Amino acid sequence: MSGAVKRLIPLFDRVLVERFAKQTTTKGGIVLPDKSTKNVLNATVVAVGPGGRNQQGEFVPCSVKPGDKVLLPEYGGNKLEIDNKEYYLFRDSDILGKWQE
Amino acid sequence: MSGAVKRLIPLFDRVLVERFAKQTTTKGGIVLPDKSTKNVLNATVVAVGPGGRNQQGEFVPCSVKPGDKVLLPEYGGNKLEIDNKEYYLFRDSDILGKWQE
Amino acid sequence: MSGAVKRLIPLFDRVLVERFAKQTTTKGGIVLPDKSTKNVLNATVVAVGPGGRNQQGEFVPCSVKPGDKVLLPEYGGNKLEIDNKEYYLFRDSDILGKWQE
Amino acid sequence: MSGAVKRLIPLFDRVLVERFAKQTTTKGGIVLPDKSTKNVLNATVVAVGPGGRNQQGEFVPCSVKPGDKVLLPEYGGNKLEIDNKEYYLFRDSDILGKWQE
Amino acid sequence: MSGAVKRLIPLFDRVLVERFAKQTTTKGGIVLPDKSTKNVLNATVVAVGPGGRNQQGEFVPCSVKPGDKVLLPEYGGNKLEIDNKEYYLFRDSDILGKWQE
Amino acid sequence: MSGAVKRLIPLFDRVLVERFAKQTTTKGGIVLPDKSTKNVLNATVVAVGPGGRNQQGEFVPCSVKPGDKVLLPEYGGNKLEIDNKEYYLFRDSDILGKWQE
Amino acid sequence: MSGAVKRLIPLFDRVLVERFAKQTTTKGGIVLPDKSTKNVLNATVVAVGPGGRNQQGEFVPCSVKPGDKVLLPEYGGNKLEIDNKEYYLFRDSDILGKWQE
Repeated sequence: MSGAVKRLIPLFDRVLVERFAKQTTTKGGIVLPDKSTKNVLNATVVAVGPGGRNQQGEFVPCSVKPGDKVLLPEYGGNKLEIDNKEYYLFRDSDILGKWQE
Repeated sequence: MSGAVKRLIPLFDRVLVERFAKQTTTKGGIVLPDKSTKNVLNATVVAVGPGGRNQQGEFVPCSVKPGDKVLLPEYGGNKLEIDNKEYYLFRDSDILGKWQE
Repeated sequence: MSGAVKRLIPLFDRVLVERFAKQTTTKGGIVLPDKSTKNVLNATVVAVGPGGRNQQGEFVPCSVKPGDKVLLPEYGGNKLEIDNKEYYLFRDSDILGKWQE
Repeated sequence: MSGAVKRLIPLFDRVLVERFAKQTTTKGGIVLPDKSTKNVLNATVVAVGPGGRNQQGEFVPCSVKPGDKVLLPEYGGNKLEIDNKEYYLFRDSDILGKWQE
Repeated sequence: MSGAVKRLIPLFDRVLVERFAKQTTTKGGIVLPDKSTKNVLNATVVAVGPGGRNQQGEFVPCSVKPGDKVLLPEYGGNKLEIDNKEYYLFRDSDILGKWQE
Repeated sequence: MSGAVKRLIPLFDRVLVERFAKQTTTKGGIVLPDKSTKNVLNATVVAVGPGGRNQQGEFVPCSVKPGDKVLLPEYGGNKLEIDNKEYYLFRDSDILGKWQE
Repeated sequence: MSGAVKRLIPLFDRVLVERFAKQTTTKGGIVLPDKSTKNVLNATVVAVGPGGRNQQGEFVPCSVKPGDKVLLPEYGGNKLEIDNKEYYLFRDSDILGKWQE
């Protein structure tokens, strides 16, 4: 994880994730052009916000934590580019699941 | 159930299900092409999330549990492919009913 | 009521109903083609879910019970086919009224 | 009021009404074709449901009662035909006003 | 105010108003055709409902009372014709303001 | 401020404002045609309503008061003409900011 | 920060920001035309409102404060021009994250 991204604190229930590396060769060893590969749905949580607010205005903590391996939905999220690397911000409630160790 | 899927924990009120096997021959024994068969609406619950949050931010448990046989709506759900098998994530409230033993 | 349908428990505020038999002859005795007859709006309740949840996450019981004769709206509901018979699932709040004995 | 309609109990905040008879002749005595006459907006309440539910799941009684003369909105309502007579179901909150005796 | 309109009680937060008379001549004395004149936005309150309901199902009184001179929005409201006179029903919250004496 | 406008009391969380005079000459002294000039976004508050209602039906006071200089959004608001002068009604929550003295 | 902008107090949960200066030359020194450069997503908070209101009508403070360096979403916000400088107003909940010192 690069230096700048460490300083980014997501707000509310936003979760900053880094997708797993794309598989760029087939099992048979053929190199895949970048466009032909779909978004990788597995990602590592880099940082989480303090949580969204309930109707009393109190923070409700996120359900994932930095380091968690999560399953992302196919669409959505805000793409960021920090130090030439791609990151994504998702709302906590849009993350589908997490992978147990 | 394969190894990887066991490690997936759905978040919030999401329910991970595996549809029953498709009927690929008619009662008369004719083999059906895959495209002509509709989605199977019966499924087995594989894993459930901790539940959605109410307005106080507390978790409201899901109404189904792993092993339950459930009736799915015709549309909706997130399709996943884990270890070359298809699974689906549905919100607890979208599941129509469950089959008593 | 067939065997399989007895084992189906609707979830939340869903109500499983069976429509009254379609009138397939006119009063004068003419046989009506199946397509010309509208959906029958009267139905018998077969099973009810535990009820929807209020904002505290508690179940609010359905306003009908198995055996009730109810009046359905013209549109809506989920059609199911169980053991070659048609059933419908409606949300409790979509049922227009019930017929007193 | 015919026999069958007496047995219909509206659910939630639904109100069963019977519109006043349509005026089918002009003041000058000309007979009007049925299509040229608009829906009559005045109606008599035949039956009322127990009321809608508030956020705690408690019933909030309807604001009209059987026998009330009410003013209906121009559009909306569910049309029913019971024993060859037309009735309408409206949500309590869609009824515009009531006529004092 | 004619006899019939006195007997109409608006329901919920509805307010029955009578618009001020349309100005049908210009300041210079030219008679304006009826179509060229816009709706008059000032009106007198004729009757008010008991008020809308809050989340506990209690009535919240209307903010205007019979006799108040009010400012209406350009669009909206239900037009009624009672004894050959035009009246309008507006929701209390759609009325823009009232004119102090 | 003319006489009639003083008597207008906005309802709920509405705020009556008068926009600052339009700049009709450029800095270089060229006269601008009326159509070429945009709406002025700065305005003076003329009157405020008692406030909107919260879920308990209580009034929540407006965040501005008569005499405040405010910043309006580019679109929205109800235009009024009183005694040949233009005024605007905005919801309190649509006003972007206020200018400190 | 110029004089006039210091006097602007955002209302509710609005946050006044000034975007970082646009990069107008490439790393190789080529001057970029103004149109070819995207909006800068990093900004400095200039002023914050008292916060939005919760359902009880109480203010919920903003999650950023003047001087904070924040990450803006690609779209949205109200553009203002004060003393020939561009500023933007964003709702607190639309700001994606903040940069730690």
